[in-house]
Amino acid sequence: MRAAVLSRVPGRLAIEDVEVAEPVGREVLVRVAAAGLCHTDLHFMEGAYPHPLPTVLGHESAGVVEAVGEGVTAVQPGDHVITCLSVFCGACEYCLSGRPALCDDPGAVRRPDDEPSRLRWKGEPIHQFLHLSSFGERMLVHENGVVRIRPEMPFDRAALIGCSVITGVGAVFRTARVEPGQSVAVLGCGGVGLNVVQGARLAGAARIIAIDRFPEKLHLAERFGATDLVDAGRPDPVAEVRRLADGGVHHSFEALGSAETAEQAFAMIRRGGTATLIGLIPVGTKVSLPGHQFLQEKKVQGCMMGSNRFREDMPRLVDLYLSGRLLLDELISRHLTLDEVNSGFEDMRNGRRARSVIRFEE
Amino acid sequence: MRAAVLSRVPGRLAIEDVEVAEPVGREVLVRVAAAGLCHTDLHFMEGAYPHPLPTVLGHESAGVVEAVGEGVTAVQPGDHVITCLSVFCGACEYCLSGRPALCDDPGAVRRPDDEPSRLRWKGEPIHQFLHLSSFGERMLVHENGVVRIRPEMPFDRAALIGCSVITGVGAVFRTARVEPGQSVAVLGCGGVGLNVVQGARLAGAARIIAIDRFPEKLHLAERFGATDLVDAGRPDPVAEVRRLADGGVHHSFEALGSAETAEQAFAMIRRGGTATLIGLIPVGTKVSLPGHQFLQEKKVQGCMMGSNRFREDMPRLVDLYLSGRLLLDELISRHLTLDEVNSGFEDMRNGRRARSVIRFEE
Repeated sequence: MRAAVLSRVPGRLAIEDVEVAEPVGREVLVRVAAAGLCHTDLHFMEGAYPHPLPTVLGHESAGVVEAVGEGVTAVQPGDHVITCLSVFCGACEYCLSGRPALCDDPGAVRRPDDEPSRLRWKGEPIHQFLHLSSFGERMLVHENGVVRIRPEMPFDRAALIGCSVITGVGAVFRTARVEPGQSVAVLGCGGVGLNVVQGARLAGAARIIAIDRFPEKLHLAERFGATDLVDAGRPDPVAEVRRLADGGVHHSFEALGSAETAEQAFAMIRRGGTATLIGLIPVGTKVSLPGHQFLQEKKVQGCMMGSNRFREDMPRLVDLYLSGRLLLDELISRHLTLDEVNSGFEDMRNGRRARSVIRFEE
Repeated sequence: MRAAVLSRVPGRLAIEDVEVAEPVGREVLVRVAAAGLCHTDLHFMEGAYPHPLPTVLGHESAGVVEAVGEGVTAVQPGDHVITCLSVFCGACEYCLSGRPALCDDPGAVRRPDDEPSRLRWKGEPIHQFLHLSSFGERMLVHENGVVRIRPEMPFDRAALIGCSVITGVGAVFRTARVEPGQSVAVLGCGGVGLNVVQGARLAGAARIIAIDRFPEKLHLAERFGATDLVDAGRPDPVAEVRRLADGGVHHSFEALGSAETAEQAFAMIRRGGTATLIGLIPVGTKVSLPGHQFLQEKKVQGCMMGSNRFREDMPRLVDLYLSGRLLLDELISRHLTLDEVNSGFEDMRNGRRARSVIRFEE
């Protein structure tokens, strides 16, 4: 199959012929129909997070089950599925306490050591990325990395649910548990941030303050449900948020992945408020918080993939889209072919587009 | 009345003649029977936190109601009470959402502007400390700053419930909501830390790791329920805790009030774990946390007075003491007279004693 290989960092992706193994045990072979480009891929391309190389990037995808191993019970060939990097073992403390996105035992969902590698390039094993590797025509994944969805759901929209949508909406519903009537601020209105905004709208938040330095992203945030827009380039956006929200918001969400915006997220919450950090802050970067403010019961918490229980969450999000309550069409700013993947990341670096999605040929 | 006045910072307390006003409206005049010495008083004496001066310190006390204003309904003369600095208005968003310790409107519980000051010294008004000022023979407080208790409860033990006990136990029960079987680490085994330890025991924590640099405090922590003791002076106490707790604890509690121990508290929790910061970290001090670890859904939260609902909590703690389940006797290392208050703080500076309590003459 054809796939986009990352061989060194910082680096670009190269479209190469890659071999994918046949499914054994609880594995599922998925024909990829659509794959979104995510900032996380870019972070890895830039080397901000380490990953063994070479690898095939991509982790936000939807497709059709093509074949299954003999132990698979969740799906069958022909099923439409969304993938999720939150592959869960289903047996550890985290899985069994409602937090499968923190699963303790990813080893349980890996290919047995005596089987050949799932992916091979030039005759050598290469690394799978986040249990998925979506930037290829096929993916071989554990069945606990996919969920069946209604077949009328368009693949490109479905793909987005696989990462940015569940991360943003999940951060509101599951990580922060925003209550109706509360106030929310969102730092960064890219693919994840816009989904925080619409998650807050769906959860009934009263005031939803979107913060970004790009006017077109703020405009989109308004479409997704923001009640107030703050230009992050102004001298003191934190003071502006505090002014809008009677001294501070109940919940802030950092959706960019920088220490500076994480610190701003903490500064703009009210007494007893919660800052939820969604963005990937680069390894080696410290978030510095004024210690005495903790006495006000301020809270700062990280968020892994929206604290998802994706088997339960994703079909609900599909329902919300098909009933017109979850916006997805507006998230897609460009469709690409696999060959155009690098230009999609160029767009992302320039901060110009909400989301590019690769559509694969059938 | 005689009271301990702080006139400048850093500074010592001076025993002076202070006038206390008569109760009006919802005010209660309390004859102080016992008052504990707390690190928070010391922080203010040292100027780490600002407070208008002169003032009478002290905020952990128990006594007898001597007179009440015409609007008081909660207590009557002769009632034994514990005081709490978490005076609540009973009407704001925080009070009505189960978080009265964060009450939004302390103005509602202050003396009306047209009344003379509650405390006067040398004919001039002086400032009340944290709505209480317990280092004096009388306190004039709002009725929402006291709770009636069973008269068989000894005053010196009761006083401790007023701050260090409710803070430590409350941090476990209410702020962190430790679950039976979870693992807990406690940094600092002074008056608050020991109560975190026994709170964890009462909540059913399986492994309770106490960390301190003083062997006698660790010894006391064992008495209070610690299952493992770690000398904070060893090269890497964080690694030791992680080793004891299979990679990290579910909950850590910082009970010292320094940025360094707050950072250690964050470092010793497991994926999905929570660090609760109880100690007063000096104004101007930053807590620096490795940003990428938030992706593991680590959480760090402040704690104000154990997130107490003291009217509900304190009578329960009295019951737990009188039935032998809550340890208080062991917390008191020395009884003082009011005149000896400065020597009590000297002991605290030297880190030698768990808690000194002033007993007032009847």
